[in-house]
Amino acid sequence: MTYTPIKNVLHEKIAIDTQVTIRGWVRSRRDSKAGISFLCIYDGSCFDSIQSIIPNNLNNYKNEILKLTTGCSVEVTGKIVKSPSQGQKIELAVITLKVIGWIENAQTYPISKTRHSIEYLREVAHLRPRTNIIGAITRIRHCLSQSIHRFYHEQGYFWVSTPLITTVDTEGSGEMFRVSTLDITNLPRTKQGKINYNEDFFGKETFLTVSGQLNAEAYACALSKVYTFGPTFRAENSNTSRHLAEFWMVEPEVAFAGLQDISKLSETMLKYVFKAVLEENYDDLSFLTQNINKKIIPRLEKMLESNFLHVSYTDAIQILLASEKKFEFDVKWGIDMSSEHERYLVEEYFKAPVIVENYPKKVKAFYMRLNDDAQTVASMDVLMPGIGEIIGGSQREERLEILDARMMEMAIEPNKMNWYRDLRRYGTVPHAGFGLGFERLVSYVTGMSNLRDVIPFPRTPGSANF
Amino acid sequence: MTYTPIKNVLHEKIAIDTQVTIRGWVRSRRDSKAGISFLCIYDGSCFDSIQSIIPNNLNNYKNEILKLTTGCSVEVTGKIVKSPSQGQKIELAVITLKVIGWIENAQTYPISKTRHSIEYLREVAHLRPRTNIIGAITRIRHCLSQSIHRFYHEQGYFWVSTPLITTVDTEGSGEMFRVSTLDITNLPRTKQGKINYNEDFFGKETFLTVSGQLNAEAYACALSKVYTFGPTFRAENSNTSRHLAEFWMVEPEVAFAGLQDISKLSETMLKYVFKAVLEENYDDLSFLTQNINKKIIPRLEKMLESNFLHVSYTDAIQILLASEKKFEFDVKWGIDMSSEHERYLVEEYFKAPVIVENYPKKVKAFYMRLNDDAQTVASMDVLMPGIGEIIGGSQREERLEILDARMMEMAIEPNKMNWYRDLRRYGTVPHAGFGLGFERLVSYVTGMSNLRDVIPFPRTPGSANF
Repeated sequence: MTYTPIKNVLHEKIAIDTQVTIRGWVRSRRDSKAGISFLCIYDGSCFDSIQSIIPNNLNNYKNEILKLTTGCSVEVTGKIVKSPSQGQKIELAVITLKVIGWIENAQTYPISKTRHSIEYLREVAHLRPRTNIIGAITRIRHCLSQSIHRFYHEQGYFWVSTPLITTVDTEGSGEMFRVSTLDITNLPRTKQGKINYNEDFFGKETFLTVSGQLNAEAYACALSKVYTFGPTFRAENSNTSRHLAEFWMVEPEVAFAGLQDISKLSETMLKYVFKAVLEENYDDLSFLTQNINKKIIPRLEKMLESNFLHVSYTDAIQILLASEKKFEFDVKWGIDMSSEHERYLVEEYFKAPVIVENYPKKVKAFYMRLNDDAQTVASMDVLMPGIGEIIGGSQREERLEILDARMMEMAIEPNKMNWYRDLRRYGTVPHAGFGLGFERLVSYVTGMSNLRDVIPFPRTPGSANF
Repeated sequence: MTYTPIKNVLHEKIAIDTQVTIRGWVRSRRDSKAGISFLCIYDGSCFDSIQSIIPNNLNNYKNEILKLTTGCSVEVTGKIVKSPSQGQKIELAVITLKVIGWIENAQTYPISKTRHSIEYLREVAHLRPRTNIIGAITRIRHCLSQSIHRFYHEQGYFWVSTPLITTVDTEGSGEMFRVSTLDITNLPRTKQGKINYNEDFFGKETFLTVSGQLNAEAYACALSKVYTFGPTFRAENSNTSRHLAEFWMVEPEVAFAGLQDISKLSETMLKYVFKAVLEENYDDLSFLTQNINKKIIPRLEKMLESNFLHVSYTDAIQILLASEKKFEFDVKWGIDMSSEHERYLVEEYFKAPVIVENYPKKVKAFYMRLNDDAQTVASMDVLMPGIGEIIGGSQREERLEILDARMMEMAIEPNKMNWYRDLRRYGTVPHAGFGLGFERLVSYVTGMSNLRDVIPFPRTPGSANF
C-alpha cells in the first residue's frame, strides 16, 4: 500500500512539488475547451476530494479519461501544486492515470452525481457510503466511538463485553427476539406436548439482550469502573424514525457511585465527545451544517459552554402542568413522560439539556434504587434539545431485602435472579450507571433526524436487507 | 466520587504522607499479636492490593474490623506511608475504616480466599472477576481492545458497525442461529402449509451473523480503510476449549490492497497490541506468567523481535509430507489442514508464527480471489505457536464474472447477492481483509487455554447462564 491518502495531500502534510500516487473514485469530471480535464477524486480519508488536472497529451486521454464517469476507480500519479482556483489550496498535476474499475452503465448507476433523497439512499445502503453525506456521517460516527473508548480509558474504566444471547429480560418489557437452532418445521416436544427447549442449542429458551447492565454490574462490583459498548436489540414493532431493532449502546457502571456521580459523568462524557468531533471532523460537520441543519455546529459549541440543568421529575410535572401547552397525553404525577413532554421541557421551557431525576418507581425497572419517599427511584434521564432522551440511568438497588421486595412487586421471581442477588449478599456496594443510545448520539451530532441514516445497515420492522 | 483509585496510590502518583480515601474489597485480613490488623484491599484498578495497617484503637476495631472477611467492601481513610515490608513500597496507615457491605456467610462465600480451580470459577462467572486471575485477564482484555481501536484509528481506518441480524450466510457453513419473533407455539402458515416468514419481525427468515465482512466490503469500497469490532455467532455444536457460540471479531477491510498488504497488516497489528499490553499490563502479565504459563511474557517479547514467516499452502503440505510425524488425518494436497497439522508447522517445524498463503479454492469461501493457477485462492491464515489459527484472511474476488462463476460452483444464487455483486459492477477495486478472533488473541496473550475463561460470560452448547 504505497499510495498516499488524499487527506495527507490536502491537509498540507506533504511539500509542494512532491510526486505522489493516490487511489480513489471519481466524484466528477469536467472538460475545458482548452483540452484539459478536471477530475475530482475522493478516497474517503477526509471529506474533500482532490482536484486533478489532466493534460490532453496523456496516452489514454481520449480512449479512457474522456469516458470516466462518477464512481469509476482510478490510480493517479501526479505532482502536488498550489491551486489557482478558489476554495482549495492544493491540486494535483497529473502525470499518469490508470483506470482500475469502470461503472457498468453510467445512466443506471444508482448513485450518479445528481443529488439523491435520503430515503432513496436507504434503498442502496451498500452504495450510499460513496455519497458526501453518508461518508461524513461514517467518519463522525467513527470519531464518536473512538472518543467514547478514549474517554472511559482515560478515566480508568475497563471495557467489558456482556453477552448478547441471554435468558434475562432486563427491562421487563418482553420485547425480545428469540434465538434458537430448533428445527422450526419439526419442533421437539415434551411428553406434555410443550416445546422441549432442552433440545435447543443452549438447553433452554434464549433471546437477544436488551441491555448489558446486569452483567456489567457483576464486573463493576469487582473492578469498580467498567463500561460496555456493544449491540442491543428490541423487538418493538414501532416503525418510527427514533427506533431501531438493532442498535449500539454504551453502558458505564460504577461502584461506590450515586445518582449525582453518574449525572456528572454523563455530562462530562458528552462534552468530551462533542469536543473531539469538533476538533477532528470540522469539515464533515461543516458540510452537514450547510446541507442538513444550520444548528449543528453552533449547538455543539454552545453545549461545551453550558451546564446541564437538573430538575426533579416532580418539579418537571409541575412545570408541564403550569404550561399553557395542549398535550396529546394528559399530564399528572405518575405518568411515564412521553416525547412531547420531554421536548417541551428542553426545547421550550429550559432551552438547554436537562437531567430529569427521581422518577416514580412504577414507571421504572426493578433494579433502580428506592428513594426514602418509597415512591420514587434514584433514576435520571438526560434530555437534549432536538432529540429528547439520549441517556437513561440510575443508582442500583444495593440492599437485598428491598431489591427482593421490588422484584416481587413486579412479578419477577427472585430465585431466578440468584446470581444478581449474590452481588448484594457478598460485599455489596452502592453503584450506579447509565445507558447511552449510540445512534441517538450520532443523530444529535450529525443532525440526521432518522436513525436509519446513522447506522450502516439499519434493522427495522420488515427490513433486514443487505 | 472523591475517592482515590488504589492504582494511583501504589504507582506513587501521590506524595508520601498525603491523606487519601480509598474504597474497595478485602482480599485478606491478618491480625498480629501486637494488636494491629493488616488488611489487603483491592479495587480492581490495578493488579495489586494495598496493605492497610489498622491500629487497635479504632472505635470499631473489635466490633467490626476483627470480623472482616474476604470480599467485604470497605471505605478506608489513611495516610500514605513507606512500607517496611518486602514486596511493596507503600502502605496505608489507617485513620478510619467504614464497612460498606458484609459477606453474608464467610463459610459459604463462593470465592473465599482459598485458591479455586478455573473450572469451578466458571460456575460463578458473576463473582469470578473478584479473583486475581480473572481481574488480570479483564484488564488485559481491555488493553487489547483499546489498543486495537487505537491502532486502526492511527492507521486511518474507520470503525463501522455491521449488522448482527442478517439473511446472509457469509461462510456458507449453515451453522447459524435463527432470530425470530414468531409465536413458536402457533406458527403462521402459508396456504401451502409452509411457515410464513412474511409474518416474522423482518418479513423474512433471519439469523445471527457469522461475519461482518461482506458488509464491511461495501464500506471499504467507499472509505478505503475500515474495520469492524463486534460480536459474531456460530451455532456449531462443538464443545471444545477453542470454540464459543458467541465471540468477538475484528475485521479490517482495505481497498486497493492485496494479500501481501494484509499479511503485513496482520503482523503490524499483532505487534502493536503485544507492545501495548507489555507496557500497560506488565503486573497482570507477571502474575499470569508465574501462575499459568511461564512462557507468557517471554514469548510476547520474542514476538516483537521476530519476523512472521511466510509459506505457501503447497509448500506447507510438502513439509508435512516430508515429516516423520504420524498424523491422525492424512496429509495430501487439497485437504483443509487440521489443527494437528497447523501445530506441527508452527511448534515443531518453524518454531515461529507462520502465515500460510494460497489455499486450494475448494476448502475456502466463495469470495476469495482466484489465483492464476485457477486452483488456489489468495488467502492467508496466521498460525501462532500454542494456539494455532488466530487470523484468517484473503484478497477478495473483485472481478464480477469470476465471482459469479465461483458462486455457481458453490451453489450460491448470484442474484440473491446482487448488492454484493454491485460492488464489482460499479468502480470495482482490488481489496482484501482478515478476521481476528478476539478471544483467541486474549487467550494467546494471557496463556489461558480455554476461551471460556477470557470472555466474561461465555456462551457454549448447553450453556447460556447469567
